[in-house]
Amino acid sequence: MKESKPHKKTGVWLVGGLGSIAVTVMVGALGFRKGLVPSSGMVTESEAFSQIELPDVSEFEFGGWDIRQDTVYAAAQKMVQECRTIDPSLLGKIAPELDEINRWMKPGLTRNCGQAIESLAAGSAPGTRSLLEEVNELRSHLRSFKEEKGLTGLVVINLASTEPSLDLQEHHESIALFEARIAENKACDIRASSLYSYAALLERCPVINFTPSPGTLIPALIDFAGHQGLPVMGNDGKTGETLVKSALAPMFLSRNLEILSWEGFNILGNMDGEILNTSENRATKIKSKDKVLSGILGYQPHSRVHINYVPSLGDQKTAWDFIHFQGFLGAKMSLQFTWQAYDSLLAAPLVLDLVRLAQLAKERGESGVMPHLASFFKAPLGTDCFDHHQQTDMLVQYISQVTSDGGESWE
Amino acid sequence: MKESKPHKKTGVWLVGGLGSIAVTVMVGALGFRKGLVPSSGMVTESEAFSQIELPDVSEFEFGGWDIRQDTVYAAAQKMVQECRTIDPSLLGKIAPELDEINRWMKPGLTRNCGQAIESLAAGSAPGTRSLLEEVNELRSHLRSFKEEKGLTGLVVINLASTEPSLDLQEHHESIALFEARIAENKACDIRASSLYSYAALLERCPVINFTPSPGTLIPALIDFAGHQGLPVMGNDGKTGETLVKSALAPMFLSRNLEILSWEGFNILGNMDGEILNTSENRATKIKSKDKVLSGILGYQPHSRVHINYVPSLGDQKTAWDFIHFQGFLGAKMSLQFTWQAYDSLLAAPLVLDLVRLAQLAKERGESGVMPHLASFFKAPLGTDCFDHHQQTDMLVQYISQVTSDGGESWE
Amino acid sequence: MKESKPHKKTGVWLVGGLGSIAVTVMVGALGFRKGLVPSSGMVTESEAFSQIELPDVSEFEFGGWDIRQDTVYAAAQKMVQECRTIDPSLLGKIAPELDEINRWMKPGLTRNCGQAIESLAAGSAPGTRSLLEEVNELRSHLRSFKEEKGLTGLVVINLASTEPSLDLQEHHESIALFEARIAENKACDIRASSLYSYAALLERCPVINFTPSPGTLIPALIDFAGHQGLPVMGNDGKTGETLVKSALAPMFLSRNLEILSWEGFNILGNMDGEILNTSENRATKIKSKDKVLSGILGYQPHSRVHINYVPSLGDQKTAWDFIHFQGFLGAKMSLQFTWQAYDSLLAAPLVLDLVRLAQLAKERGESGVMPHLASFFKAPLGTDCFDHHQQTDMLVQYISQVTSDGGESWE
Amino acid sequence: MKESKPHKKTGVWLVGGLGSIAVTVMVGALGFRKGLVPSSGMVTESEAFSQIELPDVSEFEFGGWDIRQDTVYAAAQKMVQECRTIDPSLLGKIAPELDEINRWMKPGLTRNCGQAIESLAAGSAPGTRSLLEEVNELRSHLRSFKEEKGLTGLVVINLASTEPSLDLQEHHESIALFEARIAENKACDIRASSLYSYAALLERCPVINFTPSPGTLIPALIDFAGHQGLPVMGNDGKTGETLVKSALAPMFLSRNLEILSWEGFNILGNMDGEILNTSENRATKIKSKDKVLSGILGYQPHSRVHINYVPSLGDQKTAWDFIHFQGFLGAKMSLQFTWQAYDSLLAAPLVLDLVRLAQLAKERGESGVMPHLASFFKAPLGTDCFDHHQQTDMLVQYISQVTSDGGESWE
Repeated sequence: MKESKPHKKTGVWLVGGLGSIAVTVMVGALGFRKGLVPSSGMVTESEAFSQIELPDVSEFEFGGWDIRQDTVYAAAQKMVQECRTIDPSLLGKIAPELDEINRWMKPGLTRNCGQAIESLAAGSAPGTRSLLEEVNELRSHLRSFKEEKGLTGLVVINLASTEPSLDLQEHHESIALFEARIAENKACDIRASSLYSYAALLERCPVINFTPSPGTLIPALIDFAGHQGLPVMGNDGKTGETLVKSALAPMFLSRNLEILSWEGFNILGNMDGEILNTSENRATKIKSKDKVLSGILGYQPHSRVHINYVPSLGDQKTAWDFIHFQGFLGAKMSLQFTWQAYDSLLAAPLVLDLVRLAQLAKERGESGVMPHLASFFKAPLGTDCFDHHQQTDMLVQYISQVTSDGGESWE
Repeated sequence: MKESKPHKKTGVWLVGGLGSIAVTVMVGALGFRKGLVPSSGMVTESEAFSQIELPDVSEFEFGGWDIRQDTVYAAAQKMVQECRTIDPSLLGKIAPELDEINRWMKPGLTRNCGQAIESLAAGSAPGTRSLLEEVNELRSHLRSFKEEKGLTGLVVINLASTEPSLDLQEHHESIALFEARIAENKACDIRASSLYSYAALLERCPVINFTPSPGTLIPALIDFAGHQGLPVMGNDGKTGETLVKSALAPMFLSRNLEILSWEGFNILGNMDGEILNTSENRATKIKSKDKVLSGILGYQPHSRVHINYVPSLGDQKTAWDFIHFQGFLGAKMSLQFTWQAYDSLLAAPLVLDLVRLAQLAKERGESGVMPHLASFFKAPLGTDCFDHHQQTDMLVQYISQVTSDGGESWE
Repeated sequence: MKESKPHKKTGVWLVGGLGSIAVTVMVGALGFRKGLVPSSGMVTESEAFSQIELPDVSEFEFGGWDIRQDTVYAAAQKMVQECRTIDPSLLGKIAPELDEINRWMKPGLTRNCGQAIESLAAGSAPGTRSLLEEVNELRSHLRSFKEEKGLTGLVVINLASTEPSLDLQEHHESIALFEARIAENKACDIRASSLYSYAALLERCPVINFTPSPGTLIPALIDFAGHQGLPVMGNDGKTGETLVKSALAPMFLSRNLEILSWEGFNILGNMDGEILNTSENRATKIKSKDKVLSGILGYQPHSRVHINYVPSLGDQKTAWDFIHFQGFLGAKMSLQFTWQAYDSLLAAPLVLDLVRLAQLAKERGESGVMPHLASFFKAPLGTDCFDHHQQTDMLVQYISQVTSDGGESWE
Repeated sequence: MKESKPHKKTGVWLVGGLGSIAVTVMVGALGFRKGLVPSSGMVTESEAFSQIELPDVSEFEFGGWDIRQDTVYAAAQKMVQECRTIDPSLLGKIAPELDEINRWMKPGLTRNCGQAIESLAAGSAPGTRSLLEEVNELRSHLRSFKEEKGLTGLVVINLASTEPSLDLQEHHESIALFEARIAENKACDIRASSLYSYAALLERCPVINFTPSPGTLIPALIDFAGHQGLPVMGNDGKTGETLVKSALAPMFLSRNLEILSWEGFNILGNMDGEILNTSENRATKIKSKDKVLSGILGYQPHSRVHINYVPSLGDQKTAWDFIHFQGFLGAKMSLQFTWQAYDSLLAAPLVLDLVRLAQLAKERGESGVMPHLASFFKAPLGTDCFDHHQQTDMLVQYISQVTSDGGESWE
């Protein structure tokens, strides 16, 4: 990465700001700023990005919303405890910077988020404010953060727990009806996630949905982003088993080996796992994983994805996949893999990448969905491409375009 | 695949014609001819190839060289016995066709092939013929096969057991010196595999090296192929663990996840495994597997490939790979996979593909190495590309070119 | 095994006689009789049993009940097709013997077996017979088989698909009430499996429950067996994942390593899998697997067993278990295993063992449950011992006792 | 465990006292003393031992020999760094106690230990002392430790890196000849490990060989232990893959399932792995693993154990085992497992157990080898029993005997 100009600061607004991904994002960026951690895991630090100028991670400023009450430092300690793999002395070295973020960690919403999520927000009364009052408060958070920090740009990224699945209604499809419901204070299945995004777009912030929660980028809000000239992208960050799946399935296709069954079994023990243990929230998650295979192969093999909560694992997700395939002479053969990785540690660098690329897109005047970022998502918007390698090619081509455009437009 | 013209027949000359891959090739092609088996595993039967005309597998004629004495049917029975996964009733239905091939299964050579291979050729005296006499006999086999069968084309493909590694000498690099040594009858490390290829090129047959044996396509012979206007390609068919490796490694690169170690452990029980149990032959094999990772990643992680002979497995190769990688905050994570597949069943359809594509190239007037076939090989000639997906793209682009050139030039 | 006297024949009456386990039992015993297959997998053919005389497997005669209509040979063909691992030429060599069994394959019952099982019995009307008429018909099958074949003994063994779980009522606990309900023709949750066992005990046949179906050996029937002087044993043959679990869990106990989580994931594609896909039947199965860990360890770790239907696998069950454990200094470590085996091939030899050992017990005048056979069952009756090695010791001690008693009492 | 008398202190003398197992032993015992860590992993803390009185781990005093120069605290830090799984705050809480041990960490010997081990002792000249001077110095270390600490007992346990294999000569078999060589200062393949043990036995200390090094308990020294009335035991602590193997192999035997192949592949990255990377040292290790299967099964399946050095793994050993077995009808099936554990964390609690049990044996007047401790070793002395469950039974019976003898004899 080329040196960026020193006085441009980009803000990162984390929805679910005390969750383990968000905390890892902050710890990583601050550690990176002090030269304490390597850039491993950040796509935008690869060789391929060396010719373009991106917002400087060392200059990132952090704030966010969360429904829990805690300090950033305490949440970070919990995360380090769970991921024994991180050097515990790191936290001590960035404690003041973590403490500073506390005042920008604002209360979140639980509107229509389902029982499992609401139970996390213990103590906070559901509130008597109208939808509009809620939106206005969210907007004021973003505005004052931007002003006080003197930010050039601010990107809002959803990292909160998965909401239940959503049956799209009229007011989820049309921004006019959506705004009408808010004006009338009719909460009819308007989700917290939609309110976050709406407030963000009103404040001219790009929105990234790193979760499968369907409310974040409902059609009405994607439309609205277009009208506001703002880029958005989602859904559901591709970090673990699905990443491997989207890299391996094309291999079978390239060899004309028919996949008979692909059975995936995920176990994990963090809060994400606990929330997903609730079947209404799990349904959302499994749905966004489910299109990957048929999207790549052109047919739908027998395939199921199981997600189970195993508390002792903490944040170390373990996935076992069994792939049964048929080859020459009808012979059945198999590949099985076990993936053992820390979800938060895989997700966090991608969050930093997405903030940089969303801000770049905004500076370049791009608006609406960003299919060139498909490789970051399980259920990418604006594209039918699920093949990880083709998705990667799309990003490489975009970067070439940026480079040939001058590469510095974001300034 | 479009219907091909009925009266064009392509010959397939199999070096190691009684080995399990060769036998599977013949059983599969004959089963395919009778509509008894699906086309699974043949790349050239994929959708991507539907617009071009390729030699018709149903019209393939088979012959070959082997140092063992056996009938094709008996060898096929042994193969079916080992791969319990094949429908055993298939053999009965193609027995007459298999028997017909017997008279075209000619004696092979063991020159400088090492102790392990020579011991397979029990009973056959090393011979008192000169190098030139040997070459001439090989040529006469090809010539009479071509004539008697009325073949439009004949492709020679090496499937024989792996020879020991080779220190290139002057006469391996220059066709003039190579021919001089033959004229002088100085066998100084001229391998059986080189003599096969030399005879093939003199008889205007494309040569494919599906083995890692370095003698098959020494620089002198690649040069000679260019002068003869013939296409050649190798080395070492990419069927199992390496296929998975070349599909997965790019995923880590795309995510900027540093691979710390990639340890591969292969166990298998067929004759290939037995020959590889001999360390001089194993060295050749491991060498051709070894460039894949560094070629894809741009750095060399700690990596070793172990191959061990476990007789009870027969042809069912089992590979366990352990991949240790480093992500954000320096965290170490892992992916392990177990691949359980039948080597012969993965290899055989690729052999059919390569015959079709080599014959196509010859008809199109292409000569020298064919880097667009890199995806078929562990150590592809004429390219530095080891990424399976990029290799696949190279093939797709070639096919587009053929299509836009008219696609029927091979006639 | 010592030579047994030639003229004593033991009958084996298979409930679910056309299912894959039953068919494998018959194919194996007939193959064994002709010296076509080894004795691998039969516990009673081990060295430890060489000093006692057991019913001769070569003299076994087979009959059974099934709700499906098929020939034994056709069912055997289907089984061989699914388990590609069996030598297909075997069937041809025992075809006449298999055909002879057809006339002893009698219609079974579906009373209170649940929707999934009833749907297998397509075409057969539920019937208008009374409970007593049903029992009498079952008895007549056993009686005529015994007479016609001139059997010394006849053992009834339940191998039928798993019935739904059962809430025990008064008449399941007391034989008097049970008989009263039958007399009154009140079917109130009296299962087919209970009627089979009741008929068997009336005909003085030992009963083995190789399934988890709770009706087979309800308390009332265990009592009744005692009164009749007949041995019985169950429940649920221990063949795969649970076998490994009961062998491995004691190792952790012996090292004072605390098991934190033991998550098991089973996939299989045979009819057993299909029936278990129905959640009411699965509940029964999972319950009988569930006591093993706490029974061995003395505490209950986080543990779940998942069973999923993956059609392409056929009878090849694949189980992945993940064991998370805590050692010194509180360190978390793991063991994972993948078990790939054919359920029917693991179960069938145990069925032959159990027939021999039940007949031995009857001849020795033992009655009631046989805890010395605990090692054969997932949920053994009459013991709290789930440790496979201790269970094995119990069997060894029993055999020593038999030997010191003279070992020939069964004659 | 019952409360032990407060004023009895047992010394633990660690050969290889700065190695990762030794350091883990000390950290664990000190953490245990302060109530900072659980007793997980210590066999003698199981329920089965609750009725007998054993030396109190909280009263253990530590010293040892090592060829490296380092502080105990620094070695502990290195260990914690590698095993990220340990709570890093633990070290700070026991730092003073660790520092106190430094003065009892005395220089070790490298006599005839091979190149790999000698290279660790950088800077220390091979020395000009005679064998007798060396022995006398070792004795003085033990004597002054015992006196200064006022120890009731002192147990010497070998944890040093594996020495090369040893061809037994006359003086390894006879204590008289062994002592003669020392008197004559003829070092002819007298190993450092033999000198350690000899000094220990002269000082009336029981000796435990937790390593495979053959010099530690050569026949001459076992004899000598008998004459001195001292208990000894070895060889090679059973911690990982072999533990699992010795627990699983009996399961196959109990089911009469023939093991065709058992292929084990171990990768690890600690110093142990580095030393084993040297083939002369590896040979010793593999030999002691090799008798386990044939000892349990009564026949020798195809089996090999591979050990490879993969630096990135540190102390986290990963073992993949593939077990191919044959069942009913000759069907081939498989079990594979992956064991991921920290060698030092598995070994350290066993070291504490062995010290307690060796001291108990000494107090009870037992001398010579202790076969009742077979379950702790890969190649147990004085027994042919390799079945982990039978070995466990032997220990349980011994404990019963101690209990019925009064259980307090060690005082």
